Amino acid sequence: MYAPDTLKEAMIYSLEAGGKRIRPILLLATLKGFSKPLTLGYDVACALEMIHTYSLIHDDLPAMDDDDLRRGKPTNHKVYGEALAILAGDGLLTHSFQVIASLNYLSAEVKVALISKIAEAAGPEGMVAGQVEDMEAEGKRLEVEQLQHIHHRKTGDLLSVALECGAILSSASPQEIWDLRSFGKHIGIAFQIKDDLLDVEGDQDLIGKPIGSDVSNDKNTYPRILGLDQAKEKLDFHLEQAKADLNNVEIDRELLLSLADYIGSRTN
Amino acid sequence: MYAPDTLKEAMIYSLEAGGKRIRPILLLATLKGFSKPLTLGYDVACALEMIHTYSLIHDDLPAMDDDDLRRGKPTNHKVYGEALAILAGDGLLTHSFQVIASLNYLSAEVKVALISKIAEAAGPEGMVAGQVEDMEAEGKRLEVEQLQHIHHRKTGDLLSVALECGAILSSASPQEIWDLRSFGKHIGIAFQIKDDLLDVEGDQDLIGKPIGSDVSNDKNTYPRILGLDQAKEKLDFHLEQAKADLNNVEIDRELLLSLADYIGSRTN
Repeated sequence: MYAPDTLKEAMIYSLEAGGKRIRPILLLATLKGFSKPLTLGYDVACALEMIHTYSLIHDDLPAMDDDDLRRGKPTNHKVYGEALAILAGDGLLTHSFQVIASLNYLSAEVKVALISKIAEAAGPEGMVAGQVEDMEAEGKRLEVEQLQHIHHRKTGDLLSVALECGAILSSASPQEIWDLRSFGKHIGIAFQIKDDLLDVEGDQDLIGKPIGSDVSNDKNTYPRILGLDQAKEKLDFHLEQAKADLNNVEIDRELLLSLADYIGSRTN
Repeated sequence: MYAPDTLKEAMIYSLEAGGKRIRPILLLATLKGFSKPLTLGYDVACALEMIHTYSLIHDDLPAMDDDDLRRGKPTNHKVYGEALAILAGDGLLTHSFQVIASLNYLSAEVKVALISKIAEAAGPEGMVAGQVEDMEAEGKRLEVEQLQHIHHRKTGDLLSVALECGAILSSASPQEIWDLRSFGKHIGIAFQIKDDLLDVEGDQDLIGKPIGSDVSNDKNTYPRILGLDQAKEKLDFHLEQAKADLNNVEIDRELLLSLADYIGSRTN
């Protein structure tokens, strides 16, 4: 790719800064479920991770969450300055669509379907909406439905679309796509509840941030709104719902089921 | 569109803040050249203006150019705050691709071609690259070729792609697309030279900013590098080149030619 060296470096810095790669893994696990070659999903999986990474870079900016560290490493703007961090995010977002549009092994119909779904999930009706709602909820006490709505837009939409992209690439039926999206929605909620629970009950060394930071930052969390026991029940409920959705789809479910279990039992 | 009210308001504020609408006009003028209905280009023209608008919002941010006013109105972050301005830009950029991907009156092949070309022109190999190079050139004395290279990426790529989109929508041949892109490249350079000349010789009341601000801001400009006479010669050269490119294409050239003349003779 032709791009100024500093820009390329800033984009790659955050892409290579680690993370769980959950969106790419969900997409590839869906392909595996449909017995498709995983190579079919590599580029789209990378495009999704570029969009996730852009959102983290912009989210960490001083004007937003003002975070100095992410996963133990200095955030993008701490290394490259705010201006380049903004542009690195813009570049990753734009490039993700170019990557998908230029894939020569997919039909134009499949590429348009992928781009449409991803832009919807990442844009002002999806992830960007969630960021705004999250900001506007700061300092307010939310009902559990409101919290769930915000989280679904902020992180759930892009998780769901990872499964949907895998399904589109596998030529899944509309019903299968619907069930996999619903699976994605439930594990997205479960993922966030688990995050909140780890902040209360987790092992500080494994999580990489101090326990109890949500309470001290006055954040809306599931344990805070529901209490610890009810939050755990809700986690189990959504994992069960996710598995039920998956049982409707005639595919090899093993890897997707184990990902759901991982989300419920993870320690970091 | 479902989106939080504040986000929608911030996105629309900058879209409606005026401007010359040159990219949409170039796209529609190309359709007119090919005797196509202008309605065929409305949505794609809007998508291009959304991308241009996002780039202005991010460019005006405190971490970038730190501008309080654009076209006599407070910039987006002065009205909505930095966080929402960043997200409004992100939202406009993402939504532009969703708009194109969801058009039901275009074939998937045409949509993919449009998205691919636009993402390339707007992304880390095009406009975002130009922004980075422009930043890195601050305080340095540039050669005219370097200045032209930066301007071409920063503004020329998106101008050229407006013509290319019009040509793609008109089912133009590869040769016609090539000539129209070249036309766009030359009027892009001419546009910037004229901008620089207006800052030296223009009418302050018509331009809306103080004459001589480029010199006092120590900016690299064509008159500064080449001198006034040579800068004017270069302006004429690129307008002639643009017209020569256009003469290669068998279309109704009248509107596109008058746009080139407007760019050379405009007073604001």
